[in-house]
Amino acid sequence: MKILTNRINHKHKKKLRKPGLSPGELSGFDHSDNTEIAEIYLIKYNGMELVEGAVSSVDEMVVPTHDSDHVFWYNIDGVNNPNQLGQIEHKYNLHPLLMEDIASAEQRPKLDDYDDHLFLTVKMIRYDEKINEISAEQVSFVVAQNLILSFQEKHKEGDVFNPNRERLRLNKGKMRRMKADYLLYSLLDTIVDHYFEIMEYVGDKLEAIEQEMLTNPSPEKLKEIYKFRRELIYLRKSVWPLREVIVKLERNECSMISEAVKPFLRDVYDHTIQVIETVESTRDILSGIVDVYLSSVSNRMNSVMKVLTVISTIFMPLAFITGLYGMNFDNMPELHTKNGYYVVIGVCTAVALGMLIYFQRKKWL
Amino acid sequence: MKILTNRINHKHKKKLRKPGLSPGELSGFDHSDNTEIAEIYLIKYNGMELVEGAVSSVDEMVVPTHDSDHVFWYNIDGVNNPNQLGQIEHKYNLHPLLMEDIASAEQRPKLDDYDDHLFLTVKMIRYDEKINEISAEQVSFVVAQNLILSFQEKHKEGDVFNPNRERLRLNKGKMRRMKADYLLYSLLDTIVDHYFEIMEYVGDKLEAIEQEMLTNPSPEKLKEIYKFRRELIYLRKSVWPLREVIVKLERNECSMISEAVKPFLRDVYDHTIQVIETVESTRDILSGIVDVYLSSVSNRMNSVMKVLTVISTIFMPLAFITGLYGMNFDNMPELHTKNGYYVVIGVCTAVALGMLIYFQRKKWL
Amino acid sequence: MKILTNRINHKHKKKLRKPGLSPGELSGFDHSDNTEIAEIYLIKYNGMELVEGAVSSVDEMVVPTHDSDHVFWYNIDGVNNPNQLGQIEHKYNLHPLLMEDIASAEQRPKLDDYDDHLFLTVKMIRYDEKINEISAEQVSFVVAQNLILSFQEKHKEGDVFNPNRERLRLNKGKMRRMKADYLLYSLLDTIVDHYFEIMEYVGDKLEAIEQEMLTNPSPEKLKEIYKFRRELIYLRKSVWPLREVIVKLERNECSMISEAVKPFLRDVYDHTIQVIETVESTRDILSGIVDVYLSSVSNRMNSVMKVLTVISTIFMPLAFITGLYGMNFDNMPELHTKNGYYVVIGVCTAVALGMLIYFQRKKWL
Amino acid sequence: MKILTNRINHKHKKKLRKPGLSPGELSGFDHSDNTEIAEIYLIKYNGMELVEGAVSSVDEMVVPTHDSDHVFWYNIDGVNNPNQLGQIEHKYNLHPLLMEDIASAEQRPKLDDYDDHLFLTVKMIRYDEKINEISAEQVSFVVAQNLILSFQEKHKEGDVFNPNRERLRLNKGKMRRMKADYLLYSLLDTIVDHYFEIMEYVGDKLEAIEQEMLTNPSPEKLKEIYKFRRELIYLRKSVWPLREVIVKLERNECSMISEAVKPFLRDVYDHTIQVIETVESTRDILSGIVDVYLSSVSNRMNSVMKVLTVISTIFMPLAFITGLYGMNFDNMPELHTKNGYYVVIGVCTAVALGMLIYFQRKKWL
Amino acid sequence: MKILTNRINHKHKKKLRKPGLSPGELSGFDHSDNTEIAEIYLIKYNGMELVEGAVSSVDEMVVPTHDSDHVFWYNIDGVNNPNQLGQIEHKYNLHPLLMEDIASAEQRPKLDDYDDHLFLTVKMIRYDEKINEISAEQVSFVVAQNLILSFQEKHKEGDVFNPNRERLRLNKGKMRRMKADYLLYSLLDTIVDHYFEIMEYVGDKLEAIEQEMLTNPSPEKLKEIYKFRRELIYLRKSVWPLREVIVKLERNECSMISEAVKPFLRDVYDHTIQVIETVESTRDILSGIVDVYLSSVSNRMNSVMKVLTVISTIFMPLAFITGLYGMNFDNMPELHTKNGYYVVIGVCTAVALGMLIYFQRKKWL
Repeated sequence: MKILTNRINHKHKKKLRKPGLSPGELSGFDHSDNTEIAEIYLIKYNGMELVEGAVSSVDEMVVPTHDSDHVFWYNIDGVNNPNQLGQIEHKYNLHPLLMEDIASAEQRPKLDDYDDHLFLTVKMIRYDEKINEISAEQVSFVVAQNLILSFQEKHKEGDVFNPNRERLRLNKGKMRRMKADYLLYSLLDTIVDHYFEIMEYVGDKLEAIEQEMLTNPSPEKLKEIYKFRRELIYLRKSVWPLREVIVKLERNECSMISEAVKPFLRDVYDHTIQVIETVESTRDILSGIVDVYLSSVSNRMNSVMKVLTVISTIFMPLAFITGLYGMNFDNMPELHTKNGYYVVIGVCTAVALGMLIYFQRKKWL
Repeated sequence: MKILTNRINHKHKKKLRKPGLSPGELSGFDHSDNTEIAEIYLIKYNGMELVEGAVSSVDEMVVPTHDSDHVFWYNIDGVNNPNQLGQIEHKYNLHPLLMEDIASAEQRPKLDDYDDHLFLTVKMIRYDEKINEISAEQVSFVVAQNLILSFQEKHKEGDVFNPNRERLRLNKGKMRRMKADYLLYSLLDTIVDHYFEIMEYVGDKLEAIEQEMLTNPSPEKLKEIYKFRRELIYLRKSVWPLREVIVKLERNECSMISEAVKPFLRDVYDHTIQVIETVESTRDILSGIVDVYLSSVSNRMNSVMKVLTVISTIFMPLAFITGLYGMNFDNMPELHTKNGYYVVIGVCTAVALGMLIYFQRKKWL
Repeated sequence: MKILTNRINHKHKKKLRKPGLSPGELSGFDHSDNTEIAEIYLIKYNGMELVEGAVSSVDEMVVPTHDSDHVFWYNIDGVNNPNQLGQIEHKYNLHPLLMEDIASAEQRPKLDDYDDHLFLTVKMIRYDEKINEISAEQVSFVVAQNLILSFQEKHKEGDVFNPNRERLRLNKGKMRRMKADYLLYSLLDTIVDHYFEIMEYVGDKLEAIEQEMLTNPSPEKLKEIYKFRRELIYLRKSVWPLREVIVKLERNECSMISEAVKPFLRDVYDHTIQVIETVESTRDILSGIVDVYLSSVSNRMNSVMKVLTVISTIFMPLAFITGLYGMNFDNMPELHTKNGYYVVIGVCTAVALGMLIYFQRKKWL
Repeated sequence: MKILTNRINHKHKKKLRKPGLSPGELSGFDHSDNTEIAEIYLIKYNGMELVEGAVSSVDEMVVPTHDSDHVFWYNIDGVNNPNQLGQIEHKYNLHPLLMEDIASAEQRPKLDDYDDHLFLTVKMIRYDEKINEISAEQVSFVVAQNLILSFQEKHKEGDVFNPNRERLRLNKGKMRRMKADYLLYSLLDTIVDHYFEIMEYVGDKLEAIEQEMLTNPSPEKLKEIYKFRRELIYLRKSVWPLREVIVKLERNECSMISEAVKPFLRDVYDHTIQVIETVESTRDILSGIVDVYLSSVSNRMNSVMKVLTVISTIFMPLAFITGLYGMNFDNMPELHTKNGYYVVIGVCTAVALGMLIYFQRKKWL
Repeated sequence: MKILTNRINHKHKKKLRKPGLSPGELSGFDHSDNTEIAEIYLIKYNGMELVEGAVSSVDEMVVPTHDSDHVFWYNIDGVNNPNQLGQIEHKYNLHPLLMEDIASAEQRPKLDDYDDHLFLTVKMIRYDEKINEISAEQVSFVVAQNLILSFQEKHKEGDVFNPNRERLRLNKGKMRRMKADYLLYSLLDTIVDHYFEIMEYVGDKLEAIEQEMLTNPSPEKLKEIYKFRRELIYLRKSVWPLREVIVKLERNECSMISEAVKPFLRDVYDHTIQVIETVESTRDILSGIVDVYLSSVSNRMNSVMKVLTVISTIFMPLAFITGLYGMNFDNMPELHTKNGYYVVIGVCTAVALGMLIYFQRKKWL
């Protein structure tokens, strides 16, 4: 699992393939991880029975026959071991490019339709409440007749597909009666359901930012908005191609998907559209908030300038008057009049009052 | 019914589905509302007669036969009771995902075409004059042969479909002679007609804002514009998918809709286009107003700065001159001349006048 | 006819339909106008003869037979009388929604193709030289076999279609030899030709604004630009859907239009495209002008600030020096030197000159 | 030929057609030019021979038969004589709208496909080195079986098609062996080749502006950028429809164009795309330059303000101190201490130094 | 090879073709380079054997027969010799326009499908670590039955296709077993793999800029952002048409490409999409950074102004007071009171404190 906010750019480093490598050659691995063996877990079911258990090696994995009445779901946790992936590729006769995409941590969501198997890779985006941040993880699926292979990055916080397993075990809904395509839908639905957490997070954060910027704007908040906008850009980048993937799945283009499952995929599609629209309108609203903020900054500047100008305009003439009668000329008749001092004070007061009235008329006060 | 302006974000909370739930499983309910039973009201009509009345339970609802010569319209007020919705789903053999969409308060407007029934959900947007705000409400329709089910959120201010009922009762226009598809059009038309209230509201608000910003711009108004823009974003988000829904209905894609009804749907379509264009051009005009406002702010800043500069530039040299002759050097011959004081006053006047003429030439005054 | 600039928003009031009205029900009328009867004028022609004259009532109007060798053109001036419109609808068996669109003053330009008649509504935009403003008027057409009904708002300044009438009378060009579709083209062409006046107006106004903003920018001009931009937004909103209308007419989609007339419609289409492009590039150029203006404002601000800073930086140190020797300490040896005063004057001059040289080097002067 | 920069708007005046004119009626002429007869020049060739010479009148022009083995190319210099144009229209049986488009100086580039002839009008854009400006000229083509009519505005600087003539005469390349469609390509290619001069001009100007704005930004440069942007808007407006014209020609839509010529048209298409992309990326880069400029303006403002603030902050307290001891109170014990004066000077120095250190820490100096 | 950053515009000079040249005529050459003969290197292979070696002249090049069981790959290093290119054109019977495109250094990436050969030209973009800049180079391919000609600009830093050669020699992967279309894919893949270096470069630079602008914004950084944005514009301009090229290759439009190779091309396509998305989101993020920067500038301006205003507002009244008692009027009773001086100091302190409290309340301090 990867936390994205401050480390978005690091992905590029991971992704670097040495140019000129053979296609399908798995080179992007951090060799220290090579020893890590992925955990494989099988659930095999039909309407009647469900068998499950860990599978210790790729050799034990089964290729279901076309007329098998069971659906086989292998969940592979961990995508860092090229040997193991190579064995799976060989066993199921998968396209060589496919394993490269599974192992790459930053593959763009996509759907490839090979004649006898379907390959999907999607972004699973979760909101981590503890650190108040969005994290992204790549999940890939290979779908063939009566078979689903799901590939996840290894992590500790419980498997995201546990609710699906539970439902299969309890034979709740129609899951057990349907084929691998419905299981695929069910797993995709679980992933897209997490997007609602994201939408809630986005909505709350927008509300918080709006609240603060409209009542108590501060420059620090702008950096927060900037980070939020980056998250939205990342979200859009993840969900937009997912939308295309599901459209492709739904629009009859894939022989693997039966008509009965298509309304369900349309539902998943609607959810991705909703995420995209929320992201777009949030960006729109954010730019409105920034406009309000910037204009509040220039307004405050304006009022600061007015104070300075009012003060200067009142006291500079007064300073001139007092300076005038502070001169040491021998012949300054006013200095020797009895009420000169009081006249000066009067003039000063008059000047100050006149200025104040003038500024009040100009609405500067 | 939901008032949107300050509570737009709260929707996300409502929408949260627990990831991993079975599709169609209704989980988003506030359980305290579960006991609230929706009111069901039937109007059953053909060209000859019209029968109407409340229906006390789902059991009493009728599934019209394909050759029925009556149209059955059940209006269901209240979408919070999952049991009841489940019963309706079961009775009419509806797709399981459909009830989930009906119950969700923030479903995006959409049209799903199942072979034997059509499902629509749209946003009903009303302008509430009392609080000067826009409020949104979700209305869903199930259309089958001779049957319409309409689902509304429960509210007190009179049913929005009362005029349609009245027209049916009075046998006005051709409503009674036509089938369920025309009734659907008539209900959609009622909803879209409310959009003209919104357009009026948008037009008036734009006019008010324009008036104020061009004659008496103030920073507080900017926040108002921001809130207005948010409403426009929400409006666009509601009406845009509605447009797609009606295009789909009209473009022959739905077997349920007869050719005779299509010109009417095209009319509804034109109205949605008009709302969208009004929203877009209002946004365009608003950004022009903001530009004018911001430039008026920097203009006023400019004129404030000019006053400050003029004052400083006049009085600083004068202050220097008076300061010079306020020095206490023993040997300052000017101090002892007879007209020194008057010369200084003359020089000061000359400096001040010179500066004023200079600024007048520079068009600063 | 409606002058748009300051009254654009009032349209919304006019457009308000009471929600729930029967479709085609004409409710938007100002009842005081109900008594106003539209003037109907017939021109009936073929290659040989032309008959014309006012028609006193709808009853006298003729429905031409399909094999009629005359074209009937009824021009209806005034669209405020629902009874009359209802009679026309009934006489020519028009679609009920059509009259509603004719009566509505703010219908979006559109084309509806009913099997036996075509309905068009377009915006006629004129530039009024006297008040230097753009005014808009709605013109609607019903085209059937050998029949054109044209609907205009009533006004005094001479009928816009007079040149077409004159050409028909003089049997100039091929108008008289062709059918109703060519007459439709000819009327549309007359309307679109007025757009060239608008383009001239737009070009002249842009040139005037550019001239003023580049040589003598003022904040008042910005408001003028804002109003100009509003006019452009309105223009685009009127012409854009017109373009779609003519595309639909031309692209073989309407059985009513013969192949021979299509090149002429393409010509009208080219003109609408030219208006749209002129509007778009004018908006583009305007935003460039605003940018130049805003930067000139901040430049002047900059130069004002420099003057202030130069003055302050020169005279504040001088004021300090003079203030220093204006102090009344008993023991200030400099005061009693013979040349102290002259030294101070020298120092002041040196400080001032030094500052001036410094600012000259910094290119502030 | 027309120089565009400052006279772009004048085109609107030229274009004004009196509304209501018969289609194809040529009204836009400046009647003083009516006597000017266009020069007609014929080149008639096949693989074997080439005959050329001026044609004194339209009567002498030849309509080639369909099985003619010569290609006839009539170049008409001058499009201001309606009589002559009318004669040509009549002779070659051209569509009446066509001559109107040829005579209009500001026709948008377009392609009309009449069954037996093709009509193209394009913009020829040249860069005039002497006045450092772009000039535009309209060139129209009528292409029929074995016939090309080319229409140019009259001008003195040598005919743009001279290289094509030379190549025909020298029988260079395959021009002489091919039909009228290849000649059309060759003429279009000559026109589009001039666009590379424009791209060079655009590139050089961008480089010059970039150089100046990044090293020595000045407000005058902004007006230059504005004028440059106007030129780019005009360029885009001319080239964008040209692209559509060539796409139409190339995509099999015109019977007149043989398959062998299409790769050549694709090449011309690529060139127009390159011009459009250069215009777009230049606009993009320009807006980046303007951003850098504007921020440099506000940066300089910032540094001006800092100088002012530093000076004021240092000298205002000092002025207060000296003012304090310039007061004339009888009882001011400090005045009579031996070292009061020196203490004050010390305090002043300390205050000034303290302020300087403070500003240095705040990075204002 | 060409380094782009500061020399982007120079390309236009290179590209200039003299208008009116015969199509396919190679005129853009710098004649001093004409003597430079391109190096031609042949690799000829099938599943069994591989033969390789330099080819001294075009005469020695072989045109493979359609049933040849070898694939011939000629790599031509250097595209400046028109004679040699002309010979190759003649030998392989290529379209005349093709060599012009190969020789032009700034051809837009494109794909031309001639019946018996395919022509591609793409941009090879490399990141040069030493100078921290992006450099671009054009690579062209001619693909025919069993034949690939690859054209590169001459350069010293080792051939980019060396890894492909090595793989062919070692018979690694399925390269040797497949046809020319797979070799084409493999060469394209090598080129697109270099784009990941670019994405890494873009990511790192964005991170560096973000880091600096958020913590220590400076105007110099803005120019760096401007240069970065220019690079991104250039990148997009290069990769966008490449995407179209690969879509065309993949979508069955080219007979030369077999079905087995298409999934591999889709993979290349995905990589180009990823580059485009990275460029777009980087631009998006950059504009966010610029916004944050600009607002930080105006914020600092604000705080500078506040300091100035606070200082002025405190010391100007004080200066007035001291100026007042520095006047030399005979009759100023306060001057002669015992505590006058102390009262003034008290008043001054009070005024200063009052002002400070006022500003603290206004949150200016």
